Amino acid sequence: MGELLTLESAKQIAAYKAVDEYVKNNSIIGIGSGSTVIYAIHRLVERVKEENLNVICVPTSFQARQLILNNHLTLGDLETYPKLDCAIDGADEVDSDMNLIKGGGGCLLQEKIVASCANQLIIVADYTKNSQKLGEQYKKGIPIEVVPMAYVAILRRIEDNYGGLVKVRMALAKAGPVITDNGNFILDWHFPRDISNWDKINIEISMIPGVVETGLFIKMAKKVYFGMPDGSVKEQF
Amino acid sequence: MGELLTLESAKQIAAYKAVDEYVKNNSIIGIGSGSTVIYAIHRLVERVKEENLNVICVPTSFQARQLILNNHLTLGDLETYPKLDCAIDGADEVDSDMNLIKGGGGCLLQEKIVASCANQLIIVADYTKNSQKLGEQYKKGIPIEVVPMAYVAILRRIEDNYGGLVKVRMALAKAGPVITDNGNFILDWHFPRDISNWDKINIEISMIPGVVETGLFIKMAKKVYFGMPDGSVKEQF
Repeated sequence: MGELLTLESAKQIAAYKAVDEYVKNNSIIGIGSGSTVIYAIHRLVERVKEENLNVICVPTSFQARQLILNNHLTLGDLETYPKLDCAIDGADEVDSDMNLIKGGGGCLLQEKIVASCANQLIIVADYTKNSQKLGEQYKKGIPIEVVPMAYVAILRRIEDNYGGLVKVRMALAKAGPVITDNGNFILDWHFPRDISNWDKINIEISMIPGVVETGLFIKMAKKVYFGMPDGSVKEQF
Repeated sequence: MGELLTLESAKQIAAYKAVDEYVKNNSIIGIGSGSTVIYAIHRLVERVKEENLNVICVPTSFQARQLILNNHLTLGDLETYPKLDCAIDGADEVDSDMNLIKGGGGCLLQEKIVASCANQLIIVADYTKNSQKLGEQYKKGIPIEVVPMAYVAILRRIEDNYGGLVKVRMALAKAGPVITDNGNFILDWHFPRDISNWDKINIEISMIPGVVETGLFIKMAKKVYFGMPDGSVKEQF
């Protein structure tokens, strides 16, 4: 009987399997952000070298762009490659209907743009991101990227319409709020636990003027790879 | 029999009537952008002086902010005043269902944010903005504010899904595209003339990741004042 896997090892086995199953020669791949994606990059670098693959990598954040450049992978962008074969990204939580919460790392806008340009969005995660119902595992709320001038109005509207508590995400290495890679604020919505109609709510919140993007990824993920404590990879689709 | 009014006089009579009917003491007012709003400011300045009104003005653009400051009106913002009594703004076109095209001046995002915070959105315009069907009068297309990295993907998706022609709005006083007050690009969508389900299309386009805001203002305007060639003001609501 083996020991239980660490979280890091769980991330690694999920990321490796996704890269092995979805990356082919001449693929154009969206590269997500976050701690699990780092393992996907590791495996991608190995495969590109071993198999002499020609792969274009389109980043979803400054972090992803640095990973691509530092690992000497081929950098692309959506202006040149507006259609991607797949995007490989992490998630903060995945429910049983394949709804995702993303944006704990603050890159939800570019992540959703890149995912929407990909034929298939493939999620890699450790087992702690696997839940039946959003909010069961992830306790930091749904990130919502907003235009700074509108943050109070949006915050109040969400609390008034849906309940819960909305907090402006504050920076840790500077005074004041987090500023995203696109110059916006992030609101984290700690939503009431009885909500389930996420498709409708996502549309309603997205339509509030000043909301740039939500961290709800509804009907977008094609397949999720969870690294499990027993060393297996659970696939959900 | 009087002469026909110039366009400028038509703008003026519409703006004056709207300010006279909607601004009261202690009003918090959103101040729109564009050539007609300048007349609203003129009338507002007159009334504030003559009647000693206390009015807070929340701008929708750099232009509006300058008008407020240069005319010594009281400047407010949405952080302090997230609920406005009304917003007075122009439009590029108004159809018979009160659907608007806005954003010819590139300020659609802040205009829609401010309008959405107002109890009532009041539109002031000359008679050339008055049409039965969008596109009948205004020929420059529907402005769509987008995150720069996504502009090619969004442009193609709109053309593929709905037809017509989408152009990136180019700057005149610098090389390259127009950059909005919020750092984004503007796409102008020259839409096919047979479209009429604007509510649905507006939601679909708004939901494309990377679309920050559209210049379609659907079910938002409470009342429109058109200055007419004969010197009358036509009201639509």
